[in-house]
Amino acid sequence: MKILETRTAPNPRRVRIFLAEKGIPMTYEDYEIGNLKTPEFTALNSFQRVPVLVLDDGTAISETMAICRYFEAIQPEPALFGQGAKAQAIVEMWNRRVELNLLACVAQAFRHLHPAMAKLEVPQVAAWGEANKPKALEALEKIDAALAASRYIAGDTYSVADITLLVAIDFMRPARIQRPENLKNLARWYDDVQARPSAKA
Amino acid sequence: MKILETRTAPNPRRVRIFLAEKGIPMTYEDYEIGNLKTPEFTALNSFQRVPVLVLDDGTAISETMAICRYFEAIQPEPALFGQGAKAQAIVEMWNRRVELNLLACVAQAFRHLHPAMAKLEVPQVAAWGEANKPKALEALEKIDAALAASRYIAGDTYSVADITLLVAIDFMRPARIQRPENLKNLARWYDDVQARPSAKA
Repeated sequence: MKILETRTAPNPRRVRIFLAEKGIPMTYEDYEIGNLKTPEFTALNSFQRVPVLVLDDGTAISETMAICRYFEAIQPEPALFGQGAKAQAIVEMWNRRVELNLLACVAQAFRHLHPAMAKLEVPQVAAWGEANKPKALEALEKIDAALAASRYIAGDTYSVADITLLVAIDFMRPARIQRPENLKNLARWYDDVQARPSAKA
Repeated sequence: MKILETRTAPNPRRVRIFLAEKGIPMTYEDYEIGNLKTPEFTALNSFQRVPVLVLDDGTAISETMAICRYFEAIQPEPALFGQGAKAQAIVEMWNRRVELNLLACVAQAFRHLHPAMAKLEVPQVAAWGEANKPKALEALEKIDAALAASRYIAGDTYSVADITLLVAIDFMRPARIQRPENLKNLARWYDDVQARPSAKA
């Protein structure tokens, strides 16, 4: 079993943190983000994205959350997608909220404004990149408000939604979006989650 | 238990089809898409989106996939997220691929180009709307290629990924993206899935 990834990209980092929290060792192969269109890589993932998990039987699983859920299924503890129907729904709700309203916006700002992405994001639409910055800030305010009521974003237990949030916030740096200092609940949460050993994965 | 939704919007339709496949009856309350910013609605979902599932204990679950997974957990049959770690990962992979590479692109074309969305999508960036049309077509080609090998998109069993794909394709009409006639596997799949009683939900 191995994972093909791009070391510096945010989605592979989500998987590495997830596996670190589970205590699952893994073999990683690093691919340059510009080298995902080769026939060999395309045969593993026709959508030409990282990460890709290759199982011992040759099955290739792409999509970050599909990979994480595979490991949740084969090693349920510690539960990172919640336990029980209601808690699982709340984790999924928060993971999706963070993905769709924060991580996606940060990624769009990065992809449409950063000169290094000009060859990969065609066409770069600068006005769309800029439009995503206030969207990301609005999401951060809602997340800060939610963190007034609980230690972690989906309740009092650390979950995959915290992983997505940590990675999204750290991705704001290359996307040149500054975390507002007045978001004190978010700051408290960030210091807490960022201090976990898994954050270095 | 009830679901707050906007009858004509694609994500609520995903939930209605899902529940029809499960045979779960539901009470729906229809909200105008422009009326999601009221204090009452915001108290249920701070991100001001439909659908929202309100449980009998008052818990509000938003995000389409969180709602679907809640019902998968309380009524596992028929399994729409797959059975077993590997099959579940493949369903999640395809559901994500369709969401991120097709449904999201169709939605962006609709939101950034349709005059009816001018008040909801601020700013509308027409160049970004246009940029999404070839992205959607590229995803359709990859999906068509995958459908050469299996009856449904995630294998030989109908799944939530087929629901996402059906809704995405039907959403292409208001987004003014035409399904290419040369995609014969996709056409065969569409006729098959669209004929299920759940497609009318």
